[in-house]
Amino acid sequence: MSDYQPINPEFKNRIRESFQRQRMMGTMGAELALIQPGEVHITAPYDERFTQQDGFLHAGTVTTLIDSACGYAAYSLMPADSRVLSVEYKVNLLSPAHGESFRAEGHVIKPGKTLTVCEGKLYALDSDNEKLVAVMQATMICVRQG
Amino acid sequence: MSDYQPINPEFKNRIRESFQRQRMMGTMGAELALIQPGEVHITAPYDERFTQQDGFLHAGTVTTLIDSACGYAAYSLMPADSRVLSVEYKVNLLSPAHGESFRAEGHVIKPGKTLTVCEGKLYALDSDNEKLVAVMQATMICVRQG
Amino acid sequence: MSDYQPINPEFKNRIRESFQRQRMMGTMGAELALIQPGEVHITAPYDERFTQQDGFLHAGTVTTLIDSACGYAAYSLMPADSRVLSVEYKVNLLSPAHGESFRAEGHVIKPGKTLTVCEGKLYALDSDNEKLVAVMQATMICVRQG
Amino acid sequence: MSDYQPINPEFKNRIRESFQRQRMMGTMGAELALIQPGEVHITAPYDERFTQQDGFLHAGTVTTLIDSACGYAAYSLMPADSRVLSVEYKVNLLSPAHGESFRAEGHVIKPGKTLTVCEGKLYALDSDNEKLVAVMQATMICVRQG
Repeated sequence: MSDYQPINPEFKNRIRESFQRQRMMGTMGAELALIQPGEVHITAPYDERFTQQDGFLHAGTVTTLIDSACGYAAYSLMPADSRVLSVEYKVNLLSPAHGESFRAEGHVIKPGKTLTVCEGKLYALDSDNEKLVAVMQATMICVRQG
Repeated sequence: MSDYQPINPEFKNRIRESFQRQRMMGTMGAELALIQPGEVHITAPYDERFTQQDGFLHAGTVTTLIDSACGYAAYSLMPADSRVLSVEYKVNLLSPAHGESFRAEGHVIKPGKTLTVCEGKLYALDSDNEKLVAVMQATMICVRQG
Repeated sequence: MSDYQPINPEFKNRIRESFQRQRMMGTMGAELALIQPGEVHITAPYDERFTQQDGFLHAGTVTTLIDSACGYAAYSLMPADSRVLSVEYKVNLLSPAHGESFRAEGHVIKPGKTLTVCEGKLYALDSDNEKLVAVMQATMICVRQG
Repeated sequence: MSDYQPINPEFKNRIRESFQRQRMMGTMGAELALIQPGEVHITAPYDERFTQQDGFLHAGTVTTLIDSACGYAAYSLMPADSRVLSVEYKVNLLSPAHGESFRAEGHVIKPGKTLTVCEGKLYALDSDNEKLVAVMQATMICVRQG
């Protein structure tokens, strides 16, 4: 996973700037925890405002975090004059999303000029434990600007 | 779609109560717009707190609305002593999620004792127009209580 | 679904020629049953050579038929100098694939210059009955040649 | 992946017997290459009878091999009086399926009493090389008999 070569040397700054503009990340109190070529981690606290009927994080909220992690993992390998958009994803929900906080991990499986395929995971974190909550398989698209 | 027979005559009240407990729905200002056997609609206003980097609703927020609509569509056909949980879903994002408001529609394709398969759609609404934003194919599970 | 305008007036012949070259279709005895702009149907007989352990058509065989129907539905709207490839799909298996024959239907939900999103279905057919076996949500890509 | 404990000590024989009954596996000349708790590999030769229009293995054929590998990976952890069925899967096609032969790998990510979630991969093999062709995320169900 670690031998991807970024085309854009400014990939870390570009991801940080885009993350800042994702209002949803700020609303959730999410933070970029790791940015590497082809891999991005995002952490967020538990927040009952974003829960479903049993008090677990809503599946859509789980998806939000993994989608952003996968999108930025793909974006880390895209050229300077590009934007990234989610084409599609599939999520399996494995365990209730309950914990003190959460870590979403996005990894590039197959980079491409137009489409990049990623896999993502969400872990629920407690003081002494972490648990796999959900897995994603996603397709991201590179949109050239200008 | 309209010939499904609900097992639980109280299915509408049960969905309204569960929806009330989904804190995420209140946080988004979402409302139940339609409850029928095998079909549920949810509406929500545009809110920039839940957007991605280009000002469109975040793909995960789009997913949240469709997932709840599909989950409750499935729940409308489940017995009285049951809960509904999302097993998995796949979403294709077709157009930017921009509009004054949004309507998520969930339909049951195949009900089952344990698993129910649904399809969902999200439309972006403007004063004189509606546009298909995303489609979902989802599996919901009936968990018996007690 | 019927108001798509094909760019290539020769779209029917092109699909027939490509179908001829899909050796898998001949191996299964499959036939093109309908070609319209944005919609293609493929039929195939039951054949125990392609079954799983219970004598039903293998889920992968089910997928083969729906994937080809969706691919050609997308291809019907693509320009003359292009090829079509499957990017990804998701299949829900709803009922055992048992019947005298099968009909796969592919429909375009959202055409695009690069990506086209389709939905597909497989029906099992008996003398007096048809039953929905599986549903697909798929992404196809247009590859320009030359 | 290797610390799963099978409930049925006869899991290897049971998988071999079920595989024998999957007529599709024999039709493709497929073989069980590895059976371990939570992990199954299946190999198959290239065969032009199962190809798409460009001479690559048909996406549905690719899916067939990965689906069987994932199904049997799940089955390895299921109790004696059970059958396994595919509920749904999602496949991303990463590279053309061309090679002398193919190896499908199925791994259990999350076992469960009713549902088991797996991930699968297909590799194309040449004399001196192997290449990742496709990835799958799948849900399998345990059906109790008797």
